[in-house]
Amino acid sequence: MGHEVVIVGGGFGGLYAAQSLRRAPVRVTLVDRRNFHLFQPLLYQVAIGGLSPANVAAPLRAILKKQANARVLLAEVVGVAARRRVVILRDGEIGFDTLILAAGARHHYFGHDAWERDAPGLKTIEDATEIRRRILLAFERAERLRDPVELEATLTFVIVGGGPTGVELAGAIAETARGTLRRDFRAIDPSRARIRLVEAGDRILAGFPPELSTRAADALRRLGVGVETGTSVADVTAESVLLRTGDGGERRVAARTVLWAAGVAASPLARALAEETGVSLDRAGRVVVGPDLTVPGYPEIFVIGDMAHVVGADRQPLPGVATVAMQQGRYVARRIAERLRQRESGAATDVSTETGGTLAGQAAAAGAFRYRDPGIMATIGRAAAVARIGRFQFSGYPAWLLWLFVHLVHLIEFQNRLLVLIQWAWNYFTRNRAARLITGEERRGSGKT
Amino acid sequence: MGHEVVIVGGGFGGLYAAQSLRRAPVRVTLVDRRNFHLFQPLLYQVAIGGLSPANVAAPLRAILKKQANARVLLAEVVGVAARRRVVILRDGEIGFDTLILAAGARHHYFGHDAWERDAPGLKTIEDATEIRRRILLAFERAERLRDPVELEATLTFVIVGGGPTGVELAGAIAETARGTLRRDFRAIDPSRARIRLVEAGDRILAGFPPELSTRAADALRRLGVGVETGTSVADVTAESVLLRTGDGGERRVAARTVLWAAGVAASPLARALAEETGVSLDRAGRVVVGPDLTVPGYPEIFVIGDMAHVVGADRQPLPGVATVAMQQGRYVARRIAERLRQRESGAATDVSTETGGTLAGQAAAAGAFRYRDPGIMATIGRAAAVARIGRFQFSGYPAWLLWLFVHLVHLIEFQNRLLVLIQWAWNYFTRNRAARLITGEERRGSGKT
Repeated sequence: MGHEVVIVGGGFGGLYAAQSLRRAPVRVTLVDRRNFHLFQPLLYQVAIGGLSPANVAAPLRAILKKQANARVLLAEVVGVAARRRVVILRDGEIGFDTLILAAGARHHYFGHDAWERDAPGLKTIEDATEIRRRILLAFERAERLRDPVELEATLTFVIVGGGPTGVELAGAIAETARGTLRRDFRAIDPSRARIRLVEAGDRILAGFPPELSTRAADALRRLGVGVETGTSVADVTAESVLLRTGDGGERRVAARTVLWAAGVAASPLARALAEETGVSLDRAGRVVVGPDLTVPGYPEIFVIGDMAHVVGADRQPLPGVATVAMQQGRYVARRIAERLRQRESGAATDVSTETGGTLAGQAAAAGAFRYRDPGIMATIGRAAAVARIGRFQFSGYPAWLLWLFVHLVHLIEFQNRLLVLIQWAWNYFTRNRAARLITGEERRGSGKT
Repeated sequence: MGHEVVIVGGGFGGLYAAQSLRRAPVRVTLVDRRNFHLFQPLLYQVAIGGLSPANVAAPLRAILKKQANARVLLAEVVGVAARRRVVILRDGEIGFDTLILAAGARHHYFGHDAWERDAPGLKTIEDATEIRRRILLAFERAERLRDPVELEATLTFVIVGGGPTGVELAGAIAETARGTLRRDFRAIDPSRARIRLVEAGDRILAGFPPELSTRAADALRRLGVGVETGTSVADVTAESVLLRTGDGGERRVAARTVLWAAGVAASPLARALAEETGVSLDRAGRVVVGPDLTVPGYPEIFVIGDMAHVVGADRQPLPGVATVAMQQGRYVARRIAERLRQRESGAATDVSTETGGTLAGQAAAAGAFRYRDPGIMATIGRAAAVARIGRFQFSGYPAWLLWLFVHLVHLIEFQNRLLVLIQWAWNYFTRNRAARLITGEERRGSGKT
């Protein structure tokens, strides 16, 4: 047996690491709970019925089918036995020589887990179809309502969190209400829906230059979205949301649909790793790794992507975006290949190295991970987006075209690119969103059907 | 207010009736539990990951958006108060002048409802994604199994029922195992999966000419499907299925995946209608309607599609296929328009007619419904199908092309035609099926995860 690399998580970090190891003299096992890679940047389009789940997902086996040194394992990882070099699955275990943890993050309700039922977040395919279900059902229910107060609450949508996901969701819901559904109903006017984007900080898109935040807010307001900054959420129920402004004032807003885009925390696997190895976690539960993305004292364990706390050139932690995870995946693959080469050339002098064993001796040789920031972008709606590429800022139509292009080329599988392109063209010209199906069971048990 | 036509069910019958009433002086209300029309003939392709749910569904509101005299109501119909002319919803009621019941059928387990958990049928989008989940999970579990007996049971798929759905499912699973998944796994050879199609009658595709049944069985065997006719199912568990042959012999086959394509029964609404009106039901629970598709004694209530028992020219009940429902939908729309015209021209002599009232007086004037049989077709796999068009029989490649063409042109919404065409071309050339996502929660509670 060669050197065993186990990768936990088939998101951007894990998948790019696996693919970048294709020529390395290792055996790669990619473990994921799901059988597909999810292209999360487009997930909000599933949530508003513009795309189908399969358009933003690709089966991991299909992606890695031709990579002879890789295998895929559908399993849930519950822990790591670092000293024994074993990953613990819910139903078994699997040994490693090198481990790459790339299990991502999930929503975080800042201690208010009970809010999840009434304010779902957008991380999985199931989240997206559930959100789609709630948005579409709100209009269906409104069509049958007579009471004006109940009608207004049913057609009020509150999106919590003004990051890219919140902005994209708010813009897309506004366009659905004003464009897609405009002539679909007979009793209600869907364009009268109220969409409110609530952000605790003093501007939306805090990761962007301030000028682009302003432009994004303006574009949202043109779509009819109420943008409320400096406003946090103090309570969420099935019927309403309690908003708190900076001056301590509180307002209860009747809203039947609340969506959560406010916070994420690292996979619980980070905590399990911390308990095992003593590594520190940051406030978002991310593993504070060394400059080479390894766990201090465990040079054979890498943590990358949304699970890792890594400080960038500006001394700020790197953001949880796909480009960081991709670059870290590639970096880690390069490091592993490098170490194996060094070990091979050094084998004559270091005969004590056990077979497939530790690579600690070579760890010091390589350079630290450095993030090359390609930029950042968010779309607000039809022909409206903001983007920073290097030092250049774009907004409006040019930014939107750029956004389309970048997202299309990064989609995995050519078939999906083609299908997404066609549906985008369709949506653009007809304002229709064909995938607006209400499917699945009611998730919250509030009895409102 | 004009004449109120309420249509229950947005399948082929209900939707075609609604659309055919677009120029009639009526107000149409289409009531459905779901917000979309489902193109059921292609649902099996969702079940094997070849197409996405949204590709075989179209939002009812989008279809009827431009039809000014039609509205859509998302609601569950639980009964009919025939004399009061009211449809009873789970949460309200709605009055009608004319009612068209087109609520379809669902699986039927011949008194063994407990089998549903372990042998799901294929009627809804949720059924399709659940079947997709079971088929794909079987291969995923097999990849991690060592025990040869357990492995064989996990890779044994039993499809119960040799009608078009059973044949199409069996063929598609065989192609998935031998083509799509061929290089996806490292520990198992998916092509060693056993697919068994079990049919109680003496041949599969009983609605087809015997020669085509033979050809279909041969084509299935070439794909590696075991075709077992004269065999019925005596029991289904999570672990196995008990088969009974004509001579009374019984065999228990270890199979972790059993799919049900054996029987359907009319919507429970048929029973509710029978209790209300005294109309007879046939053994499959279908309403025995008059030659003009009305309920005897209730000329303003039509029953069409899979819910109706109508005798054809050969004195056999018409089959539950889309073409019958479509023609009945159009026929009923024509009848309603005709009656309204007659009532208008006869209004001077029949002043007693109440506003928007009964049309019984004109019922005798019109001709009975006659089904024009355009033919019947079923696909077995790649370039393999059987078709009877009028008196002509086709099989193999020509039948397959015909099948593709007919299904594409009947799909609702041009966008779906384009998306399906692209995915078919893709599937054909690459043998890939990109929508093979394992999503949703486990439906059966057998604890096997």
